[in-house]
Amino acid sequence: MIQVLHGNFLYTPSLGTLETVPDGYLVLQDGRTVGIFSELPERFSDAERTDFKNALILPAFTDLHLHAPQYPMLGMGMDLPLLDWLERYTFRTEARFGDPDYARRIYRELAQKLIENGTTRVAMFSSLHTDATLILMEELENAGVSGYVGKVSMDRNSPDYYTESTEQSKRETLRWLKECERFRTVRPILTPRFTPSCSDGLMRWLGDVAREYDLPVQSHLSENHSEIAWVKELAPSCERYWETYARAGLWKPKTLMAHCVYSDEIERKAMRDYGVTAIHCADSNINIASGTAPVRQMLEEGVHVALGSDIAGGAQINMLEVMQMTIRASKFKRMESGWKTDFLSVAEAFYLGTTAGSSYFGAKPGFGEGEPLHAVVIEEGRLPDADRLTLRERFERAVYLSKPQDIVAVYAEGKRVK
Amino acid sequence: MIQVLHGNFLYTPSLGTLETVPDGYLVLQDGRTVGIFSELPERFSDAERTDFKNALILPAFTDLHLHAPQYPMLGMGMDLPLLDWLERYTFRTEARFGDPDYARRIYRELAQKLIENGTTRVAMFSSLHTDATLILMEELENAGVSGYVGKVSMDRNSPDYYTESTEQSKRETLRWLKECERFRTVRPILTPRFTPSCSDGLMRWLGDVAREYDLPVQSHLSENHSEIAWVKELAPSCERYWETYARAGLWKPKTLMAHCVYSDEIERKAMRDYGVTAIHCADSNINIASGTAPVRQMLEEGVHVALGSDIAGGAQINMLEVMQMTIRASKFKRMESGWKTDFLSVAEAFYLGTTAGSSYFGAKPGFGEGEPLHAVVIEEGRLPDADRLTLRERFERAVYLSKPQDIVAVYAEGKRVK
Repeated sequence: MIQVLHGNFLYTPSLGTLETVPDGYLVLQDGRTVGIFSELPERFSDAERTDFKNALILPAFTDLHLHAPQYPMLGMGMDLPLLDWLERYTFRTEARFGDPDYARRIYRELAQKLIENGTTRVAMFSSLHTDATLILMEELENAGVSGYVGKVSMDRNSPDYYTESTEQSKRETLRWLKECERFRTVRPILTPRFTPSCSDGLMRWLGDVAREYDLPVQSHLSENHSEIAWVKELAPSCERYWETYARAGLWKPKTLMAHCVYSDEIERKAMRDYGVTAIHCADSNINIASGTAPVRQMLEEGVHVALGSDIAGGAQINMLEVMQMTIRASKFKRMESGWKTDFLSVAEAFYLGTTAGSSYFGAKPGFGEGEPLHAVVIEEGRLPDADRLTLRERFERAVYLSKPQDIVAVYAEGKRVK
Repeated sequence: MIQVLHGNFLYTPSLGTLETVPDGYLVLQDGRTVGIFSELPERFSDAERTDFKNALILPAFTDLHLHAPQYPMLGMGMDLPLLDWLERYTFRTEARFGDPDYARRIYRELAQKLIENGTTRVAMFSSLHTDATLILMEELENAGVSGYVGKVSMDRNSPDYYTESTEQSKRETLRWLKECERFRTVRPILTPRFTPSCSDGLMRWLGDVAREYDLPVQSHLSENHSEIAWVKELAPSCERYWETYARAGLWKPKTLMAHCVYSDEIERKAMRDYGVTAIHCADSNINIASGTAPVRQMLEEGVHVALGSDIAGGAQINMLEVMQMTIRASKFKRMESGWKTDFLSVAEAFYLGTTAGSSYFGAKPGFGEGEPLHAVVIEEGRLPDADRLTLRERFERAVYLSKPQDIVAVYAEGKRVK
């Protein structure tokens, strides 16, 4: 089946570049992009056409670090110190997902919210509950969100009401992986919560499973000072935090590491050399006052960086807001460095939240030929004076001012899902 | 006429305190607050009742620094250095308000947008055009926004297409003040753009007018390093920036000074001693990478501080978003200080955007007895799990997550305007 979408296409093929195809035509065959054309080739003139007129059509957003079971606590507890926040909110909220009915209700809402906001690909932490994790994967797949979901592993330094024994953790992980076979677009990712919550034995076992099942891995790295000190205490033989993952066989291509605020030159080099992706979570780093990650530096050194909302440390599920916050954090980094470090431009932040994220899933930049379409369509009817602006200005303004209701259509895996 | 509003009332009587009246009744007589009651007194039982059920009812928001003629450029040019931003966007955009039809269209939209977002009191810069300024004041008054609006004065260091001679500036200011007599709730405020754009003669003349007409004053102060250096060059006899206003007679109670990012101890003391209010514009300071204002310090020293959106240096017209950004900026200040300076809590930021702002207009904290009601009503239907939360948690989440469509009602000057 051939379909044609008409509108203004914009995408960022590489860091800092913005390509535009004004008044263009995107041709889809069975949901896969054939190409974008400034004039519609004659051979497609009879195809079914969806006319988005003067709207902006952009690649859909990728969110490579968020905690699904923290969705109910979004925007709360922001005044608390990290440990109180974990105790009073995070663990208690996550523990509730032992109840499958609660999980079903919240995860259905979350999946819908992601689509409404134009996020079509994710790498997500679930809770430690196998059943809730499977429910989450189902709900995502039904709503049209694809990517990776991980049952969280945590067998130490966790509250009594929210922990698992090493044996339990292994057994449940295997049960979960077995059950995952039924999913098509949402796949499992191994998810040790972070070094302090996983025993050395569990970590090594996860490394074996990662190799045996050829699974990707996600965790947290060098988010704040006290965490780093704690890791050092727990793993005195490791010079740096990343080594605690590496010695267990978890440091490899397709490993995602959230935060990397305090990753120094050597840790950053280890990321680059092993093909580990750093997930920058600007809003969370600000809200929890963790620090400002050296994103510009990582990019210059060739580290692969993508963005995460990190709900509920982050209070924003909308990736355009996360991109904005990424720009703002980079401006703080600039000020902090005495105006020496360049901030991230709008196009650069957009690249990190689209192209850089989707490349993790193997996608080409922009609207890749032969690939299932992931796109959002934005109408800015609410905003003043749109007729006088260039496409680039409208793009910039869309990043700063769009609200979910301005996203009038979303395509994921080649299908319209909003 | 007696009216009763029912809902959950929250307000911040002082910095850091949050008062709640759950399931309460606010009684209005001719739009003025009689009181808030946990149980409705018998004598009001027959009054017209508006039942907002389980919604949150909060004081409406105050925005004490924004540039009305920059509204069309909201969210654009954020990648440009300050001078390019001024040249390519700001001056050109403001200059268009020489056209009264354009002014009418944009200002009507802006006034409506403010009300939609729950902002009912403002101190606002217009452009240098007298007629457009009067149109702005009309549109605000019609929409239900009250406060102060200033025709901008600028007779030097401005582009040819957007400047005025000293004589012109004086003449137009007097014409404007004369025309202002017809307004009731929107009043004039003298508005030298900032020291670099006003000749010494014009500044002194404005000082005389301020005294003679008993008018308040607003301007910019110590926003960034290059501006401060420029002021020093233009006024070598002044030790500090504030003195350029003081020597002209513009430094006095009811003077508003936007930014104060680099105001040192002595400048801050001058603010406190003279009763000058510092308007903190967090989003703008971040976007333009000006710096992080010492808000906590100013508050501790007894400087009166309120908030401004500073559109279009700020990209957010919604004051809840401005409060959030105020919190985030304070967390950067905390990190910048090696975690020594306390950040601003949600209740503190809310205080700055409501009580502190409305006190500038002479209002009592919260829902002051005998005063015309300024309030917003927020319904959080979109958010998960509201039934399990305390009122304080719902308040916190409302600050972080509310969107304009969640503001289901707005009262200004005692009347329902949304």
